[in-house]
Amino acid sequence: MPTVIQVARLKERIRDIADFPKKGIVFKDITTLIKDAECLKLVCDLFAEEAAKFDVDVVIGVESRGFIFAPIVASCLGVGFVPVRKKGKLPHKIVSVSYNLEYGKDSLEVHKDAISKGDRVLVIDDVLATGGTSSAVARLVEKLGGKVEAFGFLIDLTFLKGRAKLKKYPVFSLIQY
Amino acid sequence: MPTVIQVARLKERIRDIADFPKKGIVFKDITTLIKDAECLKLVCDLFAEEAAKFDVDVVIGVESRGFIFAPIVASCLGVGFVPVRKKGKLPHKIVSVSYNLEYGKDSLEVHKDAISKGDRVLVIDDVLATGGTSSAVARLVEKLGGKVEAFGFLIDLTFLKGRAKLKKYPVFSLIQY
Repeated sequence: MPTVIQVARLKERIRDIADFPKKGIVFKDITTLIKDAECLKLVCDLFAEEAAKFDVDVVIGVESRGFIFAPIVASCLGVGFVPVRKKGKLPHKIVSVSYNLEYGKDSLEVHKDAISKGDRVLVIDDVLATGGTSSAVARLVEKLGGKVEAFGFLIDLTFLKGRAKLKKYPVFSLIQY
Repeated sequence: MPTVIQVARLKERIRDIADFPKKGIVFKDITTLIKDAECLKLVCDLFAEEAAKFDVDVVIGVESRGFIFAPIVASCLGVGFVPVRKKGKLPHKIVSVSYNLEYGKDSLEVHKDAISKGDRVLVIDDVLATGGTSSAVARLVEKLGGKVEAFGFLIDLTFLKGRAKLKKYPVFSLIQY
């Protein structure tokens, strides 16, 4: 786990943006964090350290910001990377799950042959908010007979209680708000 | 540069998808490549080796598939990563360029404070096709006073002559078709 000093260093580089994507929401902007070479390196090292506690066959990243960290984690663990994408982006046979947004629905897709029965999966994403996206990813993995070993996040917005939605799974995060 | 054997190993894992995203186009599906742990590692190593030939301050990746490789390259070079995103995704002050698609236009954005005057930039993406996206990225960088040191691609679809559009810049690619 990151030390108090490491967490403080990372938080110092995360920028609060008021009213994005809409009025009343304070968005945690990580572009300022990953632009800082030392912080990017630290995030990669910390993710790799936490991820190494799990025995997995593949790392999943969720489009788009999950793609920034998940392949690095996969590469560190010496396993492959599987992208979960938004509707219509993947070219081969897919499985799909829909999930609720505040208004309406959206769906996530993964290639059918990307996860095999029994595969142990680590899911990496940038932010855990309400957990809606992450639980949709778990359903995708399980539809294909895979097993979610753990979820790993850069940031856990604990006040949104996303962990409650993922209580069946181990969850780690590097930074909490 | 990759050896003939390395290129053959990578090409073996790239899947051709007929008629995606539309009739008549053969799409190069890299999900099968990056799912393979050894190939993912090899791609990372080869990117890092080529990228190390350039002296840069920052690595740019283009949403979404560019995000898979660019942060790894940035991390290997010990510099920061800057995302170029589609319209409306970045939360802070942005600069924008529009570029032509086959039908209509699209635009790309980067945070104004992500590139400083004089910054030397390496742009990493998965595929060089016609070069339209890449030259739009170059215009973004130059609007902010940065200098594109080089473009690096996993795949160059040479028959689409994207290099001609980028002839002002050094361009490398790991695999050519």
